[in-house]
Amino acid sequence: MSETDTAELTELGRQLRVDAVRAADAAGSGHPTSSMSAADLAAVLLSRHLRYDFGHPDSPGNDRFVLSKGHASPLLYAMYLAAGAVDDDELLTFRKKGSRLEGHPTPRIPWVDVATGSLGQGLPIGVGMALAGKHLDRIPYRVWVLSGDSEMAEGSVWEAAEHAGFEGLDNLTLIVDVNRLGQRGPTRHQRDLEAYGRRLRAFGWHTVEIDGHDIEAIDSAYEEVRAVTGRPTAIIAGTRKGSGVADVEDREGMHGKPLPDAAAAIEELGGRRTARVDVHKPPEATVAAVSGLGRLSLPRWEKGEEVATRNAFGEAVTALGSARGDVVVLDGEVGDSTRAEFFSKEHPGRYFECYIAEQQLAAAAVGMQARGYLPFACSFASFLTRAHDFFRMAAISGADMNVVGSHVGVAIGQDGPSQMGVEDLAMFRSVHGSTVLYPSDANQTAKLVAAMAGAEGIRYLRTNRGESPVIYGPDEEFPIGGSKVLRSGADDVVTLIGAGQTLHECLGAADILAQEGITVRVVDLYSVKPVDAEALRTAADLTGCLVTVEDHHPEGGLGDAVAEAFSDGRPVPRLVRLAVTNMPGSASPEEQLNAAGIDAATVAAAVRLLVEEAVVG
Amino acid sequence: MSETDTAELTELGRQLRVDAVRAADAAGSGHPTSSMSAADLAAVLLSRHLRYDFGHPDSPGNDRFVLSKGHASPLLYAMYLAAGAVDDDELLTFRKKGSRLEGHPTPRIPWVDVATGSLGQGLPIGVGMALAGKHLDRIPYRVWVLSGDSEMAEGSVWEAAEHAGFEGLDNLTLIVDVNRLGQRGPTRHQRDLEAYGRRLRAFGWHTVEIDGHDIEAIDSAYEEVRAVTGRPTAIIAGTRKGSGVADVEDREGMHGKPLPDAAAAIEELGGRRTARVDVHKPPEATVAAVSGLGRLSLPRWEKGEEVATRNAFGEAVTALGSARGDVVVLDGEVGDSTRAEFFSKEHPGRYFECYIAEQQLAAAAVGMQARGYLPFACSFASFLTRAHDFFRMAAISGADMNVVGSHVGVAIGQDGPSQMGVEDLAMFRSVHGSTVLYPSDANQTAKLVAAMAGAEGIRYLRTNRGESPVIYGPDEEFPIGGSKVLRSGADDVVTLIGAGQTLHECLGAADILAQEGITVRVVDLYSVKPVDAEALRTAADLTGCLVTVEDHHPEGGLGDAVAEAFSDGRPVPRLVRLAVTNMPGSASPEEQLNAAGIDAATVAAAVRLLVEEAVVG
Repeated sequence: MSETDTAELTELGRQLRVDAVRAADAAGSGHPTSSMSAADLAAVLLSRHLRYDFGHPDSPGNDRFVLSKGHASPLLYAMYLAAGAVDDDELLTFRKKGSRLEGHPTPRIPWVDVATGSLGQGLPIGVGMALAGKHLDRIPYRVWVLSGDSEMAEGSVWEAAEHAGFEGLDNLTLIVDVNRLGQRGPTRHQRDLEAYGRRLRAFGWHTVEIDGHDIEAIDSAYEEVRAVTGRPTAIIAGTRKGSGVADVEDREGMHGKPLPDAAAAIEELGGRRTARVDVHKPPEATVAAVSGLGRLSLPRWEKGEEVATRNAFGEAVTALGSARGDVVVLDGEVGDSTRAEFFSKEHPGRYFECYIAEQQLAAAAVGMQARGYLPFACSFASFLTRAHDFFRMAAISGADMNVVGSHVGVAIGQDGPSQMGVEDLAMFRSVHGSTVLYPSDANQTAKLVAAMAGAEGIRYLRTNRGESPVIYGPDEEFPIGGSKVLRSGADDVVTLIGAGQTLHECLGAADILAQEGITVRVVDLYSVKPVDAEALRTAADLTGCLVTVEDHHPEGGLGDAVAEAFSDGRPVPRLVRLAVTNMPGSASPEEQLNAAGIDAATVAAAVRLLVEEAVVG
Repeated sequence: MSETDTAELTELGRQLRVDAVRAADAAGSGHPTSSMSAADLAAVLLSRHLRYDFGHPDSPGNDRFVLSKGHASPLLYAMYLAAGAVDDDELLTFRKKGSRLEGHPTPRIPWVDVATGSLGQGLPIGVGMALAGKHLDRIPYRVWVLSGDSEMAEGSVWEAAEHAGFEGLDNLTLIVDVNRLGQRGPTRHQRDLEAYGRRLRAFGWHTVEIDGHDIEAIDSAYEEVRAVTGRPTAIIAGTRKGSGVADVEDREGMHGKPLPDAAAAIEELGGRRTARVDVHKPPEATVAAVSGLGRLSLPRWEKGEEVATRNAFGEAVTALGSARGDVVVLDGEVGDSTRAEFFSKEHPGRYFECYIAEQQLAAAAVGMQARGYLPFACSFASFLTRAHDFFRMAAISGADMNVVGSHVGVAIGQDGPSQMGVEDLAMFRSVHGSTVLYPSDANQTAKLVAAMAGAEGIRYLRTNRGESPVIYGPDEEFPIGGSKVLRSGADDVVTLIGAGQTLHECLGAADILAQEGITVRVVDLYSVKPVDAEALRTAADLTGCLVTVEDHHPEGGLGDAVAEAFSDGRPVPRLVRLAVTNMPGSASPEEQLNAAGIDAATVAAAVRLLVEEAVVG
C-alpha cells in the first residue's frame, strides 16, 4: 500500500468517526464511541476489500457485511454515506421516527441482510450465509462479520465458531473490535488479543492479531485472510473506544451516548470531510442452479392408518424438497427423532447438521433465508426455547423461515418434563407476525407443510412423537387460518376445541358423551395463529361455551388463541381451558394425558360436570 | 492403587452397567448405552473421590454431582443402588408412573440438586454451585459435572467454560464422557479427545485426557484434578457407548433404547453383582456466616416524584441485601442499565458479573439457589429470551429464584425493536409455577421486590427504562395476586386494565375521557401471574367490558392473563386487547407508544369508539 493510500485511508477513518459523531449528536442518542473504535477497520474494508454493489444489493456475487455489534450503527451509516448510498440529510435522520436509519440496523435498509442489536447473533447468522455461499449459491463471496469484544462471551458465538471451524468456512471472516470496554466497564479480557486468538484457533480458525488503528496492519490482515483456504478467519483488532477524541477515548462511562461536545470532537478529528469511496463491485456471478421438479407430490395416507405427525412432516418436507430446489433442512442432532433425516437421505446436499446447538440451528436458517433459500429448522419443541432470542430477532429481520418442533406435550410419556414441549406455542405465538400450526393427522401435516412453505414470516409447525389415526382424506384442504368442524349437531352443549393429540382426545370425549346422550361440537383448531375467529364465533353462537383442550401449559397456547378471537368487544362465550397445569414425572403417554386432565375420559368428565352444574346445556 | 482395588472397581463398573441395563429393561425405555460408557468413570468417582453423605444430602460439606447427560439416569440410579441409597425394588420402578427415578433426574430425588435432560445445562449450573462454594459457602466441596460429548456443542457450555476459567474455579471438575456417538450418529469430534482438551485449555482450564475404561488412569486423573489450584479442571475420557456388550458397543442406532437382549447382555457382563460402596463422607463444614440486619428497610418515595421502576428495583434489592445475607445479584453486563449495579456497590461480595452470557447468568442463579441463596438475575427483558430453556428447566428443578427484566416494551424509544422486551410476559407466564410482577411506580416496585423474595418458584419482575410518577404512598401494600383500583365510579362504561407504563396511559386516558363526561374504572394489574381473578370479576360485573392495555405483544401477556381469569365456564365480560401489534422502528418513547396504539390518547379514542358504537356504556 502506498503512502498516499495510507493517508487517504487514515482520512477516511476520521471521516467515518466524524459522521458517526454527527449522526449521534443529531439524534441525541446512540453509540458513537463504539463506532469510532472500529472506524479504521471499516475504512480499509470499505475502500479496499469489500466487494459490494450498492446499486444492486441483490447481486449474487456481493460480499455480505454483518454488523454484529449493531449498536455501532452510526459507523455503518457513515460507511453508507462514504459509499454514496445515502446522503448527508438522511444520515442526520438517524434514530428519528420514520427513518430507516434505526438505532440498530434492520433490513428496512436494502444493504442490511439481517437485523442485529442482540449481541452474539452476527457470527452464527454469518455462518448460515457462508454455508449458503459454499454449498448452495456456490459463489465465492465473502461474509464479513464485525463483532464487538463483549459479545464474544455469548455462547452462540462459540456454537458458530465450532460450526465454522468444523465446516472449514474459509469464506467467512470475523473482525473483532477489541475496544476493551463493554457497556458497564472493562470486558473480561480487556486488550488481551491473544485470549480471543487462542480460543478461536482451538476451534480451528486462522487468526490475525493487529493494532486496529494501524492502517497498514489492517490492510495486510485483510489480504491475509482473503488468501487463507480451508478454515474460517478472524482478525482480532486491538482498538480504543472513542478513538480520536481524547475526552472519551478508552474511557469508561462513555458507552451509548452522544459525545459531550460534538463540535469540539469534530474539530479534534480534523473537521468534516466528504470523501466518496468507489466500493469494488463483485465479479459477475450466478447462483448455482437449484433443481426441483416444480410439481409437488405430497405423500398420502389412508384414513385409519396410524401415523405420527413427525413422520408425516419428514415425508412431506422430503417431497417438498423434490419439488423445490430452494428448500433446505437443518436439524440439531435429533433428525432421527424429528424425522428431518428423511430429507437428508433424499437431498443430502441440502441438509445441514447443526449438532446440539439450537442457537446456531436457528441462526443458520436466518442466514440461509437471507440468501433466498427456504429453510426448515428442526428440533425437539422443548429445546427450541434455546433459540428464542434468534426467533425474536428473525422476526425483526423480516425473515421467511420454517421451524418444526417435535415431541410436544406430556404425550411423549416416559422421558419426563425436560423433553416435553409445553411452552412452545406461547413462545412462537408471541413472535411478531408468526404463523403457528399444529396438525393432528398425517394428511393434514403434509398439507400444512406445503402451506407453510408459501407463507411469510416465522412459521412454526408442532408435531407429535406418538402415532395417531389418520382422520382426514389425502385431498382435504387445510388453509392457514382455517379450522375443521369434526362433530356437530343441533343439541351440542359445548364446543370442544383441540389440535394435535388433544383433537383425538376431544373426539374420544365426544364418543363417550354421545353414549350418555350428550352431544358436543368438536373443532380442530390446527391453525393456532392466525386463528379462525369466524369459526369460533359460529361455534360460540351455536353452543354458547367453548372448551379448549391442549397439551401445553395454560398460558399462551390454544386457550389464549381462542380467547384472543373474542378480544374485540363483542359478546364473549363461556370459556373453559383444559391444559397441563401439573408437573409431570415419568409415565406412559396415556397416564400422562390422564394426569394432566386432557385425555378423553377427563375431558368427558369435565363436560359432564358443566352439564350437571347447569353451566351449559 | 492396588491390584485388588483395580479389580474391585472393574467389578463395580460392570455392576453399574448391569443395573443400568436392568433398569432400562424393566422400564422398556431409557438410555442404557449412554450409561455404560460412563460406568467406569462413575465407579471410580463413587468409590474413591466423591465426598458425599447420602444420609444427609443437605450436609454443607458434600460434594455436588451433576449428571449433565441426564438421559444417562440409569447409571445415576445404579450408583444410588451401589451406595445403598435406593434398593433394587426401587431401581426397577425406573420411568414408571409415581417413581422418583424418572427418565431424566429431578430434585424429587434428594441427592439431585437440579433437573437435567436439556443438554449443556450441567456445566453452567455447576459453575453457579462452584461460585457459591468459593465465594458464599466458603467450603472446599467439589462440584463434579458428568457431561456427554454431544452437548459440548451447546454454546452454554462455552459460556460456562469462559466463566469458570476466568474465575479460576478449581473446585469444579468437568468429566466429559467422549463416547463418540450422539443420538443420531457420530459427534463432530468423535474420539478426538484433544479437540475438547485444546478448546478447554484455551479457556484457561487444566485438562487430562484418558482412556475412560482404564480404571487406573481414571483414578490418577481424579487425583490429578483434585490437586490442581487456580483453574477449573476437565477429565476428557475416551469411552465406548454400550461398553461391555459387543452387540451394542460403539455401534450407531443404539441410542435411547433398552438392550435388544438384556439377559444375554447381563450374562456377557458377568451377571448381577450386589457390591455396596461406602461412599466417603465429607469433612465437617459450616457455611460461612451470612450477614444481614434482619430488618428490611425499603426505600421510600413521595407521591409525584419521577422515578424509573428499574431504579426503584436497584434501590430495593440493595436494601433487601442489607437485611438478608443470602441475597445475591447477578447481571449480564448491563448492571448500569438494570440498576443491579446499585447492589454491587453496597454488597460487592454478593454481586456476580456474568458478562454478556444470559444462559450462564440464569444457570449461575439456579446453581446458587440450589446452595440455598436467593438470587436476582438481571438483564434486559429482551435478552432474557436467550435463557428461556434455563428458566423452563429451573421450574422442573423446583428452583426458587428471581429474574428481573428491564427496558421493556416500545416505551424504551429510539433503540428500536431489538432492545424491546415485548415477549417477556408470555415467556415467563408460560413457565410452570411462575410469578410475574409488573410494577408501575417506585414504591410498588420496592414492595414487590420484598414480596418476590418470599415467594416460591421462578419470580419475574418487569421494570421500565423511563421515569414515571410515583402514584402510591410508601406504606401501601401490594400482595402477590392482588391488584389496585385507581379510578371507579357508578357510571363507568368500561374498565381499563394496565400495568407498568400502560397503567399511566390508562390513567391519562381516564382523565381525557372524564373531560368528555365518560368515566371509566382503572385497574392496576401489577400481579400478572397469579392474577387477581376476583377483582377482574368485580370489574366485569360493574362495567361489563374490560380493556387491557399492554406494552407487549398481544399474545401471552396482560390480555391473556385477564382472559384466563374467565376460563372456568362462568359468564365472560366483553374483552378488548390493546397491545403492540406493529413492528416498531426508532422513535421517541411517546411516539412509540402512540404508534403502537397504547398511549393515553389512543386508549381514550378506543373507549370513545366503543361508546359511540354502543358496544359499551
